[in-house]
Amino acid sequence: MAQRVYPLSRVYALLEPGPVLLLATAGTARPNVMTLSWHMPVEFEPPLVACVLSNMDFSYARLKAERECTLNIPTLELADKVVAVGNCSGRDVDKFAAHGLATRPSSLVRAPRVVGCYASLECRVVDTRMANRYGIFILEVVKAWVDASVKAPKTLHHRGKGTFMVAGDTITLSSRMK
Amino acid sequence: MAQRVYPLSRVYALLEPGPVLLLATAGTARPNVMTLSWHMPVEFEPPLVACVLSNMDFSYARLKAERECTLNIPTLELADKVVAVGNCSGRDVDKFAAHGLATRPSSLVRAPRVVGCYASLECRVVDTRMANRYGIFILEVVKAWVDASVKAPKTLHHRGKGTFMVAGDTITLSSRMK
Repeated sequence: MAQRVYPLSRVYALLEPGPVLLLATAGTARPNVMTLSWHMPVEFEPPLVACVLSNMDFSYARLKAERECTLNIPTLELADKVVAVGNCSGRDVDKFAAHGLATRPSSLVRAPRVVGCYASLECRVVDTRMANRYGIFILEVVKAWVDASVKAPKTLHHRGKGTFMVAGDTITLSSRMK
Repeated sequence: MAQRVYPLSRVYALLEPGPVLLLATAGTARPNVMTLSWHMPVEFEPPLVACVLSNMDFSYARLKAERECTLNIPTLELADKVVAVGNCSGRDVDKFAAHGLATRPSSLVRAPRVVGCYASLECRVVDTRMANRYGIFILEVVKAWVDASVKAPKTLHHRGKGTFMVAGDTITLSSRMK
């Protein structure tokens, strides 16, 4: 995937369809990555995103401490790795090494991008006031990267317990919606 | 669509893939309905859902005042109506009448269910503290209805400006994820 810089004003449309994400954090010894399906856009521009992490997740404490991450959008080609990453904890294993996922440096945050993903969003944590009660973090996307050659990305959409819907056909309707 | 009562413990899996929703409120004179793509699960059980409404939306003030709504999941058959509902405001028009959408009474909330939808979730607003700043409402799903005969619902996933991805194939991978 040849990612290019992507306009921040269009980031919401990458997340709005609900794809499974890979959330990467920098760490001190090694970066970590987790799967994440509980997220939504909150504002168009600057793009804000809310996501929910469990305080059982290794990445929860990292995100609170580091206040930076990347959100990476994998497609069907990475499905096995997405599930493998979700089946283990970064407490026990170097997930990137264990599952043959490579990293690429980000531009504005220390957390790396995940190689092979259709899109990568560099994010800063801007609000953790809902983290204790709901696990909700508010992120601001500060730089976005997309492989623009992929016109209809086969994103993965979790339906629970390892069942994923793969993005299907695209239809266009006459809408005044943004 | 013949909706039956559905276990609350499985509601998250209906919302996690990111479908466009129809959010209905009761009103005093007439019910209203809006399209909504900015939502995410927050807790498994009791199922909590976060959603974002603009304070420009007619439903925003209604949701704050009524503290109840339904979230309805339409499929491809309703695509034209979903877009039509998103293109007008309940301030000006009775959207149900204008777009030939019928309602059905809910069981535990005054907001109606939208006929023709694959699933309907009866919700109570449990937290509006993030509404002023982010437009975020936290809803608790108190009763769920699903047409269980639909095995692979052709849900709609907004990619911006009237472009929708229609749910495609389903794959199952060996996952320990819930």
